[in-house]
Amino acid sequence: MSLLTILHRHKEKTGSSGEEKILKHYEVLIIGAGTAGLSAQKEVAKTTDNYLVVDSGPLGTTCARVGCMPSKVLIEAAHIFQQRTKFNAIGASACESKLDSAALLRHVRQLRDRFVNGVKKDMEPWMSTHLRSAQARFVGAGELELDGERITADKIIVATGSEATVPAPWRAAGQVLHTTDTFFEMETLPASLAVLGAGAIGLELSQALARLGVKVTLFGEPGSLGNISDPEIRRYATPRFREELEFVEGLVDAVAAHEQGVEITVGSQKYHAEKVLVAIGRAPRVRDLNLKALGQPLNKKGLPPLDKDMRVEGSNVFFVGDVNGIRPILHEAADQGRSVGREPSENPADEPRARARLAITFTYPQIAVAGKNFKELEESAEDFVFGEARFDGQGRALAKLENVGMIRVYARRTCGLMLGAELFAPAGEHLAHLLCWAIDSEATVFDLLRRPFYHPTLEEGLRTALRDLSHKVEIEPKPWSYLHSMDPPAGTYCP
Amino acid sequence: MSLLTILHRHKEKTGSSGEEKILKHYEVLIIGAGTAGLSAQKEVAKTTDNYLVVDSGPLGTTCARVGCMPSKVLIEAAHIFQQRTKFNAIGASACESKLDSAALLRHVRQLRDRFVNGVKKDMEPWMSTHLRSAQARFVGAGELELDGERITADKIIVATGSEATVPAPWRAAGQVLHTTDTFFEMETLPASLAVLGAGAIGLELSQALARLGVKVTLFGEPGSLGNISDPEIRRYATPRFREELEFVEGLVDAVAAHEQGVEITVGSQKYHAEKVLVAIGRAPRVRDLNLKALGQPLNKKGLPPLDKDMRVEGSNVFFVGDVNGIRPILHEAADQGRSVGREPSENPADEPRARARLAITFTYPQIAVAGKNFKELEESAEDFVFGEARFDGQGRALAKLENVGMIRVYARRTCGLMLGAELFAPAGEHLAHLLCWAIDSEATVFDLLRRPFYHPTLEEGLRTALRDLSHKVEIEPKPWSYLHSMDPPAGTYCP
Repeated sequence: MSLLTILHRHKEKTGSSGEEKILKHYEVLIIGAGTAGLSAQKEVAKTTDNYLVVDSGPLGTTCARVGCMPSKVLIEAAHIFQQRTKFNAIGASACESKLDSAALLRHVRQLRDRFVNGVKKDMEPWMSTHLRSAQARFVGAGELELDGERITADKIIVATGSEATVPAPWRAAGQVLHTTDTFFEMETLPASLAVLGAGAIGLELSQALARLGVKVTLFGEPGSLGNISDPEIRRYATPRFREELEFVEGLVDAVAAHEQGVEITVGSQKYHAEKVLVAIGRAPRVRDLNLKALGQPLNKKGLPPLDKDMRVEGSNVFFVGDVNGIRPILHEAADQGRSVGREPSENPADEPRARARLAITFTYPQIAVAGKNFKELEESAEDFVFGEARFDGQGRALAKLENVGMIRVYARRTCGLMLGAELFAPAGEHLAHLLCWAIDSEATVFDLLRRPFYHPTLEEGLRTALRDLSHKVEIEPKPWSYLHSMDPPAGTYCP
Repeated sequence: MSLLTILHRHKEKTGSSGEEKILKHYEVLIIGAGTAGLSAQKEVAKTTDNYLVVDSGPLGTTCARVGCMPSKVLIEAAHIFQQRTKFNAIGASACESKLDSAALLRHVRQLRDRFVNGVKKDMEPWMSTHLRSAQARFVGAGELELDGERITADKIIVATGSEATVPAPWRAAGQVLHTTDTFFEMETLPASLAVLGAGAIGLELSQALARLGVKVTLFGEPGSLGNISDPEIRRYATPRFREELEFVEGLVDAVAAHEQGVEITVGSQKYHAEKVLVAIGRAPRVRDLNLKALGQPLNKKGLPPLDKDMRVEGSNVFFVGDVNGIRPILHEAADQGRSVGREPSENPADEPRARARLAITFTYPQIAVAGKNFKELEESAEDFVFGEARFDGQGRALAKLENVGMIRVYARRTCGLMLGAELFAPAGEHLAHLLCWAIDSEATVFDLLRRPFYHPTLEEGLRTALRDLSHKVEIEPKPWSYLHSMDPPAGTYCP
């Protein structure tokens, strides 16, 4: 316990129960030692030693324990194993390799443990003095209870993250029902799996598991596949996914145990699988926080109203990271933690600012959004034009035997300012960074066409889309017209 | 033949021989239908129909026929086949697939033909009227001979490309000696191969062939490996390449036929292999052009002096693309062709400008340079600092089982302006585009740290290097200090 904490420590008689309670005061209290909470801690620790991080366990972050990391290990394993299907095309004989799914899942957990231990190791310098393993519970607007102790703080940062949503009736399915919290703990992969929810998590795991030999049936609401909002990309991508897995577009009415494992009901149709993975969404993990003690109306997710600084209106309580549901992805959660955790800076350049969005679904090829997506632009007042390119005949994609993909890029009609892009493309995650950084720096399509594109790269596929876009921007004469002269006919080699 | 050409056509008596020669005049004459020549043609055709492209064949560009494209098909095949070595780690049984190198080479040539046909198809609209299959030969400063005809032009664009350098004594080795001109025509891959030259072409083919089962011995001058100039990256990368192939650092004294195929002599050491691939460099393809007729002194490469516009001083003759040796890579060759081919623009923004360099060697992981390399900075007056990161413990690289790599990024000490980078990294080609575009737009390291980095991506490995770099820039207080707080200890998981 730090000196400052001791100085702030005193006892008081509580009014109602007459029971003696310890009241501690901290400068900052952080609830949740996940990505957002740990980012906040790093900032807080720069300016005070009088802080406490509370976590009810297990430690190691959602990302490393049950989220991005174990899923990526599984996805990359599937991608590696998938390469054997190209052997015939390159002149190699069929590969008879068999997958031992128990060994695969051990590999996933082994790397997962390495990532979790990395997180814990980073916490070591301050764990013994500033971390409490406990469940925090609000008892008033600025006061909490922790193992029977009363706590107050100048600033309270709630960073409890999110948890998979599972409708109560579905839980009766019992052991055959999984979320990502339990999925990677399985001994072996099931022979067949129903995946509920075709968003990023549901889709990327479905594709990987199908490639690993699981018979996957994916259920998603109409139009929800991989969060693709551009109808042209959805039209292009959907049949590609259907080549590998059964995709049922519809609303799931019921999930129940069945002699074959689990039964999924969609309207009058019944589907059966050995197990079910529920990935229909995530909700704030606030059940045990007793947020009603904050004295504010709670929304249907159980959250109080937050202002633009993620603060509960009129209080010293902040909600950062996945728990607030604003942008539930790691780099945004980390930024929110840093932003709220740090001391106000005297340097105006140090102010956080809204950055261009970047969202990636780790299928192969990847689905990605940079900046605004098609739907947001359609629903906005923005007058935009689009450019398009496909990878079916793209040179490098052909060489890689990965010639499946499509890009759509959006710019302001009157000036070519880059607004956004949706991708379903090989190296989509990398092309999306390139586009996102360009959008974030307010570049125009003409700026981008002046940048080097090495040959032969997948970036040249992006350039084809940018050239198409540049023709549609209504400036005459076009700036740097000579950059636009090499558009190849669709489907041919593009130098 | 176009109307304009006919109007310009007339006959004249030549003085010396008394023989009747046809003298034709064109607005533009382009010698060479490769990448640079074709780029020039596209621009020229926008403003005149009175032009001629001359090529002595074969058509299809060096890149598509014998350069970037067939090599990339081979390299990608090797990368695909290589994935089976990771099967054990992901829980799959050993893959006993055997490679049929004849089938592989057919695959390479089949895709190569598709690329070449794509180029030819793009030429179809103007081939019959504006392309002559012939060898052009200068007979004066602005006059050429073509199949006995005399030709003049307002502008002459020489774009004859380059050819592999093979010292004359080595040629005596005969059939066992290959350059990339003949390599992909082989029926089968040799059991063993000596590769002379450890630059981009030599190194990337050596690694791919070793992975395809060829016993490769690579010979390179000391310090030449993959054109890596940063000594730290060279120190890191060299043993990684040595795990897959024998690398002999030294000067090759002799190459000769031998009962086992070929004998390579380096000092007192002799090495033997079934075949040899010579990739020690490329020289301008000017032998048959009779450039001495230009009336200028020729340098040791056989080229006349060129001004900054790639023009032979005081003449109407331009040298563009690989033939001038300035930046012998495709996107620069294409730009040079466009730049010289187009009409002067009234729009000042339309002027070509020097762009940040981008150079990629397509090994796995890739070697790349963005902007200035370490050696150029060391030899310049620039006061620079560097940042560094390795991929050995990087999260996504671990998930991909590709956790080998290192990045060094360079910035101006006093302000953080990004100057350059050298990479030996997974997805190095993509990270290099990101860095090159940032350098090209004159971003600082602090600008880059404000951009989104998605999780879990290899771009986060780049961020680690950028954070390291940002600490070394001598500005206090650091702009946007809160972006710098998450440097993980080396080797642990980095969120």
